[in-house]
Amino acid sequence: MRAATIRDGSVVVEDHADPEPAKNEVLVRVRAAGLNGADIMQRAGRYPAPPGEPPDIPGLEMAGEVVAVGPGVQRFSEGDRVMAIVGGGGQGELCAVHERAAMPVPENMDWDSAGGFPEVFTTAHDALFTQAELRAGERLLVHGAAGGVGTAAVQLGSALGARVTATVRREEARPEVERLGATVIAPEGFEEHGPFDVILELVGAPNLAGNLRALGMQGRIAVIGIAAGAKGEINLAQLLAKRGRLHASMLRARPLEDKALAQRLVEKHVLPLVESGAVRVPVAETFPLDRVADAYERFTEGGKLGKIVLRMAH
Amino acid sequence: MRAATIRDGSVVVEDHADPEPAKNEVLVRVRAAGLNGADIMQRAGRYPAPPGEPPDIPGLEMAGEVVAVGPGVQRFSEGDRVMAIVGGGGQGELCAVHERAAMPVPENMDWDSAGGFPEVFTTAHDALFTQAELRAGERLLVHGAAGGVGTAAVQLGSALGARVTATVRREEARPEVERLGATVIAPEGFEEHGPFDVILELVGAPNLAGNLRALGMQGRIAVIGIAAGAKGEINLAQLLAKRGRLHASMLRARPLEDKALAQRLVEKHVLPLVESGAVRVPVAETFPLDRVADAYERFTEGGKLGKIVLRMAH
Repeated sequence: MRAATIRDGSVVVEDHADPEPAKNEVLVRVRAAGLNGADIMQRAGRYPAPPGEPPDIPGLEMAGEVVAVGPGVQRFSEGDRVMAIVGGGGQGELCAVHERAAMPVPENMDWDSAGGFPEVFTTAHDALFTQAELRAGERLLVHGAAGGVGTAAVQLGSALGARVTATVRREEARPEVERLGATVIAPEGFEEHGPFDVILELVGAPNLAGNLRALGMQGRIAVIGIAAGAKGEINLAQLLAKRGRLHASMLRARPLEDKALAQRLVEKHVLPLVESGAVRVPVAETFPLDRVADAYERFTEGGKLGKIVLRMAH
Repeated sequence: MRAATIRDGSVVVEDHADPEPAKNEVLVRVRAAGLNGADIMQRAGRYPAPPGEPPDIPGLEMAGEVVAVGPGVQRFSEGDRVMAIVGGGGQGELCAVHERAAMPVPENMDWDSAGGFPEVFTTAHDALFTQAELRAGERLLVHGAAGGVGTAAVQLGSALGARVTATVRREEARPEVERLGATVIAPEGFEEHGPFDVILELVGAPNLAGNLRALGMQGRIAVIGIAAGAKGEINLAQLLAKRGRLHASMLRARPLEDKALAQRLVEKHVLPLVESGAVRVPVAETFPLDRVADAYERFTEGGKLGKIVLRMAH
């Protein structure tokens, strides 16, 4: 099979041996695979694939048809439409994944959307609901809301009854993020718009001081993205006075059972919202596999709303 | 009644009108009342009493007999031995407290111990179990373990099946903290002894960088004390890689329902350990009410193990 391949700081297309489905795995003929920040970091050599994953094929999510099943598979059959989070290897024509890390693709969802759904929606759902325990009626602030996780978080927060405020740097992106369900504000002076019960941090440490000021009593800050910087000063007296909580996490390095649990929660709580049309995957642009290098460049340029998705031709 | 009273940065004994038990309150003839860091801060004018509490009588905990009950009281009768967390006013000869913020004093517990029990054991239990979700078998690090909350946390962690390590600055105090159930280490280089699942921070921000390095995967840092400093640098990349959590809280400012819930958990999970002798209140020194100024000085000197307790003569 052909697959996106990391070679010396670049991403190219190379031939690889076809993966085979091991016990409890399904083999997926990939139709679409979303790009994520981790792919860009892996291209730069800063985010090696976890042990057991293809070391040189990037891609943390994909969607396609099951073309073969390994021994013991119970959840899916050949021909089923599935989408999944993977630890790597999503951006190839074929991808093997444990059946418990995969989800069915709703009938009303196209391949581009399905390929760009699993990573960002699972990340957003896990951060907002499992970690930060966001509840209906609470105020949510999403920093960096125009990206993949941001657009997912705005929709999930809004669909599940939270009142969502979002910071978006680029003015042109603001109307679309508003359509997704947020009150959009500029990043400058965001702390004047609090207090917030939950703050989803997708930008980085530069927002930390403002986040602490804008946090409400018993508020929670969930840190997912730190591209703008990892180190910042924290005032524990502020956190103490508000009885606040700060957590940080990422999906990629988690073991199978954690990823599987997260998928079950998304199946139960988010797929019905996809089926009803309450949430959707904003796709900024699609690229064929042959233009994977362009896709990565487009990802790093910024100024996009939603996902960059690779399409596989079969 | 006579009570410890804050006057212009000093603590003195003054006469006050006797408090009366309002609806659902019990009036307690106080036998003993522990000192806490918040009292010292209040003496310095830096920690005013919450609204509705006596503004000038310090004291966050006390124990004594019920001498009168207000309308609607169901849990206690005259003559019952009770102990309670209060938002202030604990260090007087009489104290009125909502019956749901009070707990019964086990038969085998003397007044000094009961007077020094509620604040530190509730604080430690809330931080370790409600917030940080410490479980049996996990590794707990307690920073500043020779103080009131520290000695409570070491005993609770140990009694409930955690493996407890404790930092104690003063060498003379280490054997006693070991007897309470901890492996005691010096504060310098503590991060070499990790990884820890839960870190209870009773010292302050200077430990923050080391705490992040010493934290295990999915570890939790609970910040309760910040006397050594509130501001420090945090590396979010470390927190992210460990999927870690940092929370901070205090008891005093919480509303009645929160304090009552915390008391119910202590009643259920900690009082049986008091009754069995598995945990006890180390009392460093007791002072009569007339020597309250000396008691406060003793508290600030440090170098004590466990609680400083005021005794009321009746």
